[in-house]
Amino acid sequence: MQKVKCIKGGVCSAKGFKAAGVGAAIKYAGRKDVALVVADAPCSAAAVFTTNKVAAAPVLYDRMAVKGGRIQAILANSGCANACTGEGGLKDAELSALIVAGELGIDPRLVLVASTGVIGRRLPMDRLAAGAKEAVKSLGRTSTHSLAVAKAVMTTDTKPKEACATVVIGGKKVTVGGCSKGSGMIEPNMATMLGFITTDAAISPAMLRRALLLAIGKSFNRLVVDGDESTNDSVFVLASGKAGNAEIVRGGEDFDLFRQALEEVCISLARQMAKDGEGATKFVTVTVRGAKSEADAARAARSVAKSPLAKTSWFGKDPNWGRVLAAVGYSGAEVSDMKAEVFYDDEWAFRRGEIANEAQLAKLAKILEKDEFEVVVDLHLGNCSSSIYTCDFSLDYVHINADYTT
Amino acid sequence: MQKVKCIKGGVCSAKGFKAAGVGAAIKYAGRKDVALVVADAPCSAAAVFTTNKVAAAPVLYDRMAVKGGRIQAILANSGCANACTGEGGLKDAELSALIVAGELGIDPRLVLVASTGVIGRRLPMDRLAAGAKEAVKSLGRTSTHSLAVAKAVMTTDTKPKEACATVVIGGKKVTVGGCSKGSGMIEPNMATMLGFITTDAAISPAMLRRALLLAIGKSFNRLVVDGDESTNDSVFVLASGKAGNAEIVRGGEDFDLFRQALEEVCISLARQMAKDGEGATKFVTVTVRGAKSEADAARAARSVAKSPLAKTSWFGKDPNWGRVLAAVGYSGAEVSDMKAEVFYDDEWAFRRGEIANEAQLAKLAKILEKDEFEVVVDLHLGNCSSSIYTCDFSLDYVHINADYTT
Repeated sequence: MQKVKCIKGGVCSAKGFKAAGVGAAIKYAGRKDVALVVADAPCSAAAVFTTNKVAAAPVLYDRMAVKGGRIQAILANSGCANACTGEGGLKDAELSALIVAGELGIDPRLVLVASTGVIGRRLPMDRLAAGAKEAVKSLGRTSTHSLAVAKAVMTTDTKPKEACATVVIGGKKVTVGGCSKGSGMIEPNMATMLGFITTDAAISPAMLRRALLLAIGKSFNRLVVDGDESTNDSVFVLASGKAGNAEIVRGGEDFDLFRQALEEVCISLARQMAKDGEGATKFVTVTVRGAKSEADAARAARSVAKSPLAKTSWFGKDPNWGRVLAAVGYSGAEVSDMKAEVFYDDEWAFRRGEIANEAQLAKLAKILEKDEFEVVVDLHLGNCSSSIYTCDFSLDYVHINADYTT
Repeated sequence: MQKVKCIKGGVCSAKGFKAAGVGAAIKYAGRKDVALVVADAPCSAAAVFTTNKVAAAPVLYDRMAVKGGRIQAILANSGCANACTGEGGLKDAELSALIVAGELGIDPRLVLVASTGVIGRRLPMDRLAAGAKEAVKSLGRTSTHSLAVAKAVMTTDTKPKEACATVVIGGKKVTVGGCSKGSGMIEPNMATMLGFITTDAAISPAMLRRALLLAIGKSFNRLVVDGDESTNDSVFVLASGKAGNAEIVRGGEDFDLFRQALEEVCISLARQMAKDGEGATKFVTVTVRGAKSEADAARAARSVAKSPLAKTSWFGKDPNWGRVLAAVGYSGAEVSDMKAEVFYDDEWAFRRGEIANEAQLAKLAKILEKDEFEVVVDLHLGNCSSSIYTCDFSLDYVHINADYTT
């Protein structure tokens, strides 16, 4: 029944793409910090950006550039967000696209740019230009090239994140692959995350955008690390059409198959990002079910996932379900503590006024020892549910964020 | 011009009140954990409670009890929140009021109860009853008795919090005094905070409630520690009428004077709570000015005060104004980073696209070394402003909340 196959791969897995990741000393020497993804020809393209009103220069630039629906290259850098950099920052974003277009000999309107890192610093344009030039020289189609992109966009991520899926559409094998970076400031709607996805599906820009929005709703927008939303979040998808399927231009079976493959890639990346949340020691799925409405379920799950008290209790391996229920209580969702139940995985902690006794608490404590578990709140008020991927709040989160910058 | 005088004092400062704080081993032996405030006669009373839909049993009980507007005694305990305890918990709250009324020989409808501590545990009624009995025996009117109440309600607070103010109304000296406890889970609208305020003003219950709502809007509702809102928040005020002023039954000069005194007490307590936020090393006032609307200013200030990234940057003494501006950006308030300015105290960090240079950053770094400073965001879009009291997010916050309970 499962038509989508998850395989190992990244931005170079789909046909028609080359990539490179190189070191340009944007912030630190000795690490990759400039990434480039280039298609053999202009692609169908779609992108989704941060909803933060303080949007970084590359986001402002890309919003315009992607409107044409055709893109051939994406340049990305870590180490500097090019955010809150005024008119000068916008010109830097524009100039970056021009440099890449010049090196590749393509129309600059076919180039997108992305940045992540410290806010309020201008891009070191000389080093970025050198990096872009170097990247163009280093382009290739191997898994090493894919991985180099995943590595070059990392900031406080401890691991590169890649995912790939294949699906057969109209007799043709279609591949969707990509990478992303986290790992703090992560919250719906997406935050300090960059995602780069490529596919060889033939699909119109409009349908590609629709598929991307649906996939993001089930993946990156279900991800909470600390509740901060960044100025730079962007997810890009380029479709080369090289798989040879009949172009997807409307809804239907072909579209659904493609959407599922894209969704699998996005969900895999989102889970990897939650696991690698800043300082995270635990990957936690928060599920609220039995809610009156989907909005209530999502609101309640998000509230728990963002609660510093719930998150520190997970770090402390403490089945403190009271903090979970309190966070549901202030979420705005309908809830009655006379009806609600709280579970950790399959073990109950609280059910309709009954409190876990010592024997039950001992079972819960074992679940809290695990690296991954699910917190389930059943409101018993309706049939709607929602899940959020998140992580705990650790001493290292504070270390990382007190020491980052300046 | 300043008609309100702030003096040293607490719940026993106003005429007509006795108090006690005793140890009853509710959770730990060897510390005070039961508090009692008793008026010589029934008082005008008002109270404001948590908006959390998962409200603790004492909150459910008090909401009904305070409707009559006349209260003579308040029993409080720390160590157990009596929250998520079902019907049994409600009966425990009711029984607690009955016990106190019995000991004092007053109508049980004149007694309020308050609890703070761990959620999801039943009150140890035998120990609470013994504590209440002991408290009645220990009642007195000295500053030691005031302080004993402030101490008995502490949970993770490191210091007792008291405040007092006097004002002359119609030729009569009126005193307002009280205490409160913080210190995590603190957020508008008030969270895990208990506040106990007494006054000898003569004032009707309706006007007392109006004054309390106004004062809370300028104090406890401007306080953010971690953004979690508790199930137990309550602020009580009892007015004995012993000052001998003409009873305040409507708005006007007398009401304004009283309101100002109450406000001073509440603001002082709120500031003490922010300073003693769980793990706090810095007291930070976040002010947003130049906003299009008051709602925008409040939303933006709150967003900064709740941002884990901004809070950890303060802990790290890092003038990371980009995180401040990013938090304003996702707050929902109107903002343009081309117009906005960010200051730490009087030093600018970012102004309309211009970024602090090294010399300016050095000045900012000195401000970040201080125990108290103000973060100011001027949006330059209008004339509205709002301030929030908050603190940084430290390693100790995580320690405290990972290790608390079980």
